Amino acid sequence: MSLLDRMRVIRPPDLSRYRRLVVDGQAVGWVAGELAARLRDHDKVFAVGDGTVMLSPRLRGYAERTAAVDAVLRSLRSGGWFRGWRDEAYPVGISFGRRLFEMERAAVPAFGVRAYGIHVNGFVGEGPDLRLWVGRRSRQKPTYPGQLDHLVAGGQPAGLSLEDNLLKECAEEASLTPDIVRRARPAGIVSYLLENEEGLRNDVLFAYDLELPPDVVPVNADGEIEEFYLWPIERVIEELSGTGDFKFNVAFVIIDFLIRRGFVGPEDPDYLELVHRLRRRPAADIVR
Amino acid sequence: MSLLDRMRVIRPPDLSRYRRLVVDGQAVGWVAGELAARLRDHDKVFAVGDGTVMLSPRLRGYAERTAAVDAVLRSLRSGGWFRGWRDEAYPVGISFGRRLFEMERAAVPAFGVRAYGIHVNGFVGEGPDLRLWVGRRSRQKPTYPGQLDHLVAGGQPAGLSLEDNLLKECAEEASLTPDIVRRARPAGIVSYLLENEEGLRNDVLFAYDLELPPDVVPVNADGEIEEFYLWPIERVIEELSGTGDFKFNVAFVIIDFLIRRGFVGPEDPDYLELVHRLRRRPAADIVR
Repeated sequence: MSLLDRMRVIRPPDLSRYRRLVVDGQAVGWVAGELAARLRDHDKVFAVGDGTVMLSPRLRGYAERTAAVDAVLRSLRSGGWFRGWRDEAYPVGISFGRRLFEMERAAVPAFGVRAYGIHVNGFVGEGPDLRLWVGRRSRQKPTYPGQLDHLVAGGQPAGLSLEDNLLKECAEEASLTPDIVRRARPAGIVSYLLENEEGLRNDVLFAYDLELPPDVVPVNADGEIEEFYLWPIERVIEELSGTGDFKFNVAFVIIDFLIRRGFVGPEDPDYLELVHRLRRRPAADIVR
Repeated sequence: MSLLDRMRVIRPPDLSRYRRLVVDGQAVGWVAGELAARLRDHDKVFAVGDGTVMLSPRLRGYAERTAAVDAVLRSLRSGGWFRGWRDEAYPVGISFGRRLFEMERAAVPAFGVRAYGIHVNGFVGEGPDLRLWVGRRSRQKPTYPGQLDHLVAGGQPAGLSLEDNLLKECAEEASLTPDIVRRARPAGIVSYLLENEEGLRNDVLFAYDLELPPDVVPVNADGEIEEFYLWPIERVIEELSGTGDFKFNVAFVIIDFLIRRGFVGPEDPDYLELVHRLRRRPAADIVR
């Protein structure tokens, strides 16, 4: 029954089962043994070694790498890999500002590359009177149906700037107009690494704070959110501490918000542990 | 010439030269070989093993541990250890909210235990018009003379609550009255580990944001600050990016402030690296 319980859902994966994906000298992801074995059939694009899978250094630049990787992914897809193909490109790199190439979204967890997302803390008022907009995910959604969510959150595809993605997601998920969305300010990141049936989720979430005028009421336009609530911050803390009803990574971003805005302070015995768990260095960097 | 240059002053220490200090099953610090050898003479208090220095589990509770360690420190002090003895107790523990005992401040780096501090970002206005109060340290100070500093910053001794320490430091360093200081909100932490001639600095800095009314002008009362400036945030960013004039850990806390308030955003190629370097997990936790 604590905020730290929300962070405990993540157990560090056993990285010994993976090879590092190296592109242009940078470790950008993780590839499990079975996929690495398949990539041996594509040795003009990938060099599979004992501890690494290296993208051929003969591929130079963003477009050339993207095209070569895409051809391999499509070939593997026809062999049954990467279910849920979306025809949506995700950027690959150890930083969003330094992208090396792009890759079909459905293949991202199999390669353990960082996936970037945007999460918007939408709120009204400040201090003890602050209220946070909370969404209830549609019960029809394939992932985390019925769980509590942010005002707006979504993945970051390759073709859009962060700002354009923010405008698009805020329009689709909450019918917010550009003049309102432009008030959003970036406020840091939350990062984590976890293992599931798709592979590794090596996520970096960009948190935005968006103070809404009291008369702006979000209306979902894409069917992904069933209902919005405007909850006093104590109610949010109560739900977060006492239940697992918030989608796990939404909980992380809200805990970060609580810390940045002083709703959780350093006298809390879990304070340091919370702060450190919110910003686990993505594994691509920490392993030598 | 970048914010990241400010973070690069810290090189991770070679921890193989240290033994972990273990208290009540928790790794709370690091002890170098020479001190570990001396502690063998005090085997009722410390058990020196191959990789650890363990505080005797027969010592139970805060007061008993504190008294036993203090007696050892005073004995070593008479043999020339711990120069600059201050008769000021620092709390020891892996979290400020879970203190296990306290220890003379001058001995803290020799035991590599976490030292907590408070750093106050004092500012006026918001958004692009925000101005930050910056202090110039006295040229007479033994440490970092003449460097740029926060409005208020100081170590966190054991006998005071964080709030009382904040009130005390804000009065001494900037003549701020309690009604003003109580507006300060905790906003997270900056942590780092570095090695210097004293031993290990295993620091956790609690950042506070304090919005000051435009008519409040800080006046230093303890001779530690020579002058205060109220700088537009662009000027602060310029100084931070281009010079090493800010005291190193003050630079960290201000970079964290810039990120939290959106003055540095995710399109910056160094964004992720900055965020992660600001919150290095103190080493006591990461080594198994």
